[in-house]
Amino acid sequence: MSESNQISADLDKRIDLDKVLQQVRVFAPATVANMICGFDILGFAVEAPGDEVTMRRVAQPGVRIVSIKGDDGRLPLDAAQNTVSACALQILSDLGLTEEFGVEIELVKHMPIGSGLGSSSASTVAGVFAINALLGSPLSKDELLPYCIAGEKLACGHGHADNVAPALMGGITLIRSYDPLDIISLPVPEGLCAGIVFPHVDVPTRDARQLIKERVLLKDAVVQWGNVAGLIAGLYRNDFELIGRSMQDVLIEPVRSILIPQFAEMKQIALENGALSFGISGSGPSVVAITRDQDQAATITRKIQEHLNQLEIDCNTYVSNVNQQGPRILD
Amino acid sequence: MSESNQISADLDKRIDLDKVLQQVRVFAPATVANMICGFDILGFAVEAPGDEVTMRRVAQPGVRIVSIKGDDGRLPLDAAQNTVSACALQILSDLGLTEEFGVEIELVKHMPIGSGLGSSSASTVAGVFAINALLGSPLSKDELLPYCIAGEKLACGHGHADNVAPALMGGITLIRSYDPLDIISLPVPEGLCAGIVFPHVDVPTRDARQLIKERVLLKDAVVQWGNVAGLIAGLYRNDFELIGRSMQDVLIEPVRSILIPQFAEMKQIALENGALSFGISGSGPSVVAITRDQDQAATITRKIQEHLNQLEIDCNTYVSNVNQQGPRILD
Repeated sequence: MSESNQISADLDKRIDLDKVLQQVRVFAPATVANMICGFDILGFAVEAPGDEVTMRRVAQPGVRIVSIKGDDGRLPLDAAQNTVSACALQILSDLGLTEEFGVEIELVKHMPIGSGLGSSSASTVAGVFAINALLGSPLSKDELLPYCIAGEKLACGHGHADNVAPALMGGITLIRSYDPLDIISLPVPEGLCAGIVFPHVDVPTRDARQLIKERVLLKDAVVQWGNVAGLIAGLYRNDFELIGRSMQDVLIEPVRSILIPQFAEMKQIALENGALSFGISGSGPSVVAITRDQDQAATITRKIQEHLNQLEIDCNTYVSNVNQQGPRILD
Repeated sequence: MSESNQISADLDKRIDLDKVLQQVRVFAPATVANMICGFDILGFAVEAPGDEVTMRRVAQPGVRIVSIKGDDGRLPLDAAQNTVSACALQILSDLGLTEEFGVEIELVKHMPIGSGLGSSSASTVAGVFAINALLGSPLSKDELLPYCIAGEKLACGHGHADNVAPALMGGITLIRSYDPLDIISLPVPEGLCAGIVFPHVDVPTRDARQLIKERVLLKDAVVQWGNVAGLIAGLYRNDFELIGRSMQDVLIEPVRSILIPQFAEMKQIALENGALSFGISGSGPSVVAITRDQDQAATITRKIQEHLNQLEIDCNTYVSNVNQQGPRILD
């Protein structure tokens, strides 16, 4: 881990050895970062896909990854390099347990890497939640979040929170500020649904970020924060129309969408079929249609899939309401 | 007027001659545009100061300004050039009443011009509200707003709505979008108060705008829209702490505050005395402390006034809760 996280001095007192589990299996969800208009500050969690982490207490001290499934061999098995094990190591270190506590980790990725759906965040959050659960949950979610952000930095090269915050907290989250970290949970209008399409084209997060210019026109920024404000108001007012007309991105989408084949055509299909809004999920290439209900999202993802398949572009599709829980213990 | 406003074709049918008044006197309030973090999109109305417009129906067709008080001779008496009369002319023209309806106007300015408190907007809104009231109120506030924006453009050279929208609508308003115009009324937390200081230094709106750079750093814009989002959430949550820490301006204040003598010292006085936030009102030189109650705002404005007076800088001070009504008929 590149950053140590200071936790309060009384923490070791919170560890109740009676509550330490032998094994825990945790699911953490994929996330849609940015929510189209809120670059780097907004995100929401979905029900599926997501990643699974199993942690098992063993006699030999230290943290070891024993298996990773579903990554096509792309993720490091080195405990210091993999975000899941590195976060566990850091937490054990901060708790003063490095010398005495041993953990074996199995990671099962159910979602594609580099999809724009917070793949590394899902693994990180599952891992952080799992080690905490194994220890009897001594840390609150607020206390776990800095570990997740440090894990994200290790995995992606930047410590953004717009995937890890919603993956950990569940629901729709606002990162009001990074320094100091200030996370606000926003209300989730009933029925609000995401229809997600992940086209099988490669757009690494780093490349997608490098496309974005360092400076933007102030007049475009004004449009963007008007839309951010409208989206927040729309969520509190339960106003789907306002949510829809606010979820427009005049700054990032015009640049990043160039990397996504058929973006304009997919957007047209979504809007013609009743989507409140359509845009890029995170840094792409996944795209997301925001709808009032699951039926609408299912229709849109099916029609986009048919369109892409005609052009011989494979894709995954997902339909999900907002996941209000975040990570959960499977067994 | 530089722009004609299309109103719906059935409008002439709405004029009920029995409801046409002989005379009306209207007050419209000053406004705090930007609300520190929301450049060009947010604003709120205050109880005082504000401007008064009296409109009197006369036999001779046309619109005439018969007197302006409190402007030190700075405002035009030419009916086509003064925003109050120009808006009245435009509304009468759109209603097809130019040939038959005569109006005399008296304008009393109770607030300084070029103060950053929406002086021209207060006059414009008072005038637009007055001509509508004189005609028996055929137009809704939503229909009146485009006239106010056109009047603001005539008076200031730009058609921003962050003063006229709150002056007309009352309360706290979000201009989500200018094209199409999309105004959202935001909740007003009970007690929220403004302590305003107008130091007697000259900062014309046009100069204050020209200081602002055309391009801004994206990373600063992200901070700004995080704060905008936090402020909107804070208003809905009735969360004064969140409101306070969100009302920070990293983009405009660093540039515009250079034009305002003693800005840093005034900010320090405000924050040391419990202000939730402190910043520039509109384009300045007025400054505003946002507080939880009137007592706090009164203390802060008094202390700032004492500080400025020691330096032989005169100022006006105002303490006001958010004005939820907007313009009102005095008699």
